[in-house]
Amino acid sequence: MTDADYRSELDTPCLVVDSALLERNIEEMSAYARARGIALRPHIKTHKTAEIAQLQRRAGAVGFTCAKLGEVEALADAGVLDDVLVAYELVGEQKIRRLLRLVDRLRITVAVDSVAVAEPLAWAVAAAGKRLDVVIEIDTGLRRAGVEPGEPALRLARELQRMPGLRVRGLMTHEGHAGRATTREEMERLARQAGEAMVATAELLRKHGIPVEVVSVGSTPAAFATTQVAGITEMRPGTYVFYDAAAFRFGRIGPERVALRVLATVISRPAPDRAIIDAGSKTLTTDPPPPDRRGFGYIVEYPHATIVRLNEEHGIVEFPAGTPAPAVGERIEIIPNHVCPVVNLQDELFVVRDGRVVGTWPVVARGKVR
Amino acid sequence: MTDADYRSELDTPCLVVDSALLERNIEEMSAYARARGIALRPHIKTHKTAEIAQLQRRAGAVGFTCAKLGEVEALADAGVLDDVLVAYELVGEQKIRRLLRLVDRLRITVAVDSVAVAEPLAWAVAAAGKRLDVVIEIDTGLRRAGVEPGEPALRLARELQRMPGLRVRGLMTHEGHAGRATTREEMERLARQAGEAMVATAELLRKHGIPVEVVSVGSTPAAFATTQVAGITEMRPGTYVFYDAAAFRFGRIGPERVALRVLATVISRPAPDRAIIDAGSKTLTTDPPPPDRRGFGYIVEYPHATIVRLNEEHGIVEFPAGTPAPAVGERIEIIPNHVCPVVNLQDELFVVRDGRVVGTWPVVARGKVR
Repeated sequence: MTDADYRSELDTPCLVVDSALLERNIEEMSAYARARGIALRPHIKTHKTAEIAQLQRRAGAVGFTCAKLGEVEALADAGVLDDVLVAYELVGEQKIRRLLRLVDRLRITVAVDSVAVAEPLAWAVAAAGKRLDVVIEIDTGLRRAGVEPGEPALRLARELQRMPGLRVRGLMTHEGHAGRATTREEMERLARQAGEAMVATAELLRKHGIPVEVVSVGSTPAAFATTQVAGITEMRPGTYVFYDAAAFRFGRIGPERVALRVLATVISRPAPDRAIIDAGSKTLTTDPPPPDRRGFGYIVEYPHATIVRLNEEHGIVEFPAGTPAPAVGERIEIIPNHVCPVVNLQDELFVVRDGRVVGTWPVVARGKVR
Repeated sequence: MTDADYRSELDTPCLVVDSALLERNIEEMSAYARARGIALRPHIKTHKTAEIAQLQRRAGAVGFTCAKLGEVEALADAGVLDDVLVAYELVGEQKIRRLLRLVDRLRITVAVDSVAVAEPLAWAVAAAGKRLDVVIEIDTGLRRAGVEPGEPALRLARELQRMPGLRVRGLMTHEGHAGRATTREEMERLARQAGEAMVATAELLRKHGIPVEVVSVGSTPAAFATTQVAGITEMRPGTYVFYDAAAFRFGRIGPERVALRVLATVISRPAPDRAIIDAGSKTLTTDPPPPDRRGFGYIVEYPHATIVRLNEEHGIVEFPAGTPAPAVGERIEIIPNHVCPVVNLQDELFVVRDGRVVGTWPVVARGKVR
């Protein structure tokens, strides 16, 4: 992506998507899911755009995953959602009212991890004369939300069965702790353990007469590992459409595979070893680097440089003595540490093919945190 | 702000502004500037809303400061900008074209810190038959953009005077390094040094026949310190409208003074010492805590709890053993570590007075990073 027209054409900072790389990433994950016979239900949190959801669907996604109802509403309004898993506990009367409206528009399944979360949902849908599909969120090691696998999950499943309006479709987990591993071996071990805990819990429920149709896992770093466990029926990766610098450490992904970059301009060269760029924390976010890397992103043209500090609209870049450094006005491309919150800061993505801007995709679910 | 109607009325996560505290913060800074005889030119990066800009103006602000032209355009379109300092180096043909359009709409001054930045501006405005007011950005210790005080600033001023189209109005600095100090004494010492370097540089320029009308400093933490130096003519604080957890360490500001809070809901209680809230990094940002604090924000109702980890839509909160902890569905209010990027993630602010929602203010310059 160097010396191309779009680099001088676009105002900065902005997000540039290489459509060929995007399509390759989407096709690779789809082909894997097809080959394993696993349903692919991508998480839209990474891209939040209708156009990329459409590409995923055409490549074989069975439906989508969202965290927040606002994401569901935005993508349903854009006409690309008909089957969605809300991988999130929905709590509070405002959320339940919005959910009841969505139940009529599309096939929706929501996560629950406690009686306290499930009961208000159950009574609300039953009182409205509706039914709601739920999956039980299992904590396979991330220590976030979720009930413990095994007996605690079974106890919750039995309580859910006694509630009106709910239909238990199965189990879901987000094995995000595997993605935080420092080596590929550790990542694969944690992912396998998570997958095995899910399948064992599904078997336990079935043994007690509770049908488990869905055993769903989700995480891009662990996508090809967790799904090696027989009995997993669904995967929900998100970041794979673009990838980011956090993906580099497991060896499979390098900068040449990353489909989204931040195009930035050097606005000041106050010292020989320092450049200031127009992308700060309001563009790159302060999400920290993965354990094997330093700084707030990977500069494609200057891989030895480090983005040492971010202010809101300034990136402070340091160059090792004797290495090349850019001049004022030069444009550089940055691979973010974590691409998802970076996309969430922008109103649009600029789509590039063969070095030219071929489209602009609105980030329709940007900022939909409710 | 407890037990009030808005806490159950609003969907979460959302940003709640206490209008009485907001007005107090605005009035306090205005009164200080008036008493010192210093022009107050607030930075709009913190609030990015027309309504708050109007309050600042009514309290006596002489104009505003922006970083990006997109902020200028959005607030000018909202009808609240007529005099603005762009405290940022504008580089690239797209920026210059936009600047030329703005020059006709309002009084605009831009920062320059090098010949490489100034020359394209000079020739572009001269060729268009226009003039542009500039200030020289001085690096008083932040090590970001800016020319060194003293002789280097004088050399640049002379070069600017030889360029067509430009009028040098004076000097500006952002003494943000003072705000990163760990004690109030250190902050005040760094702020005073920055102010003295500015005034000495202004004197040097004047001695060489270069008029210096503006000596501008800017930073909320150092606002009452830098401006103690005689000869400072203008201050550009931003965060003071709301304040945040970073402000606590200098002693003057406590939680009771903070005008903006994130209202969040507990969505899971998977363990006795852990709660999961619906505000993650897409709401609170991963901006780290100031040196004296831990976690990703200050929970007003549970000050002993720590927001130990953020995923995009989840906040993981830990409670010390034996301390009270909230139930699923309970609402809590969080003071962010750094309020500016938090506001930049939201489409609107909910305005509360006497415990009731009295308005919604659109964040019109949200995401305007270009």
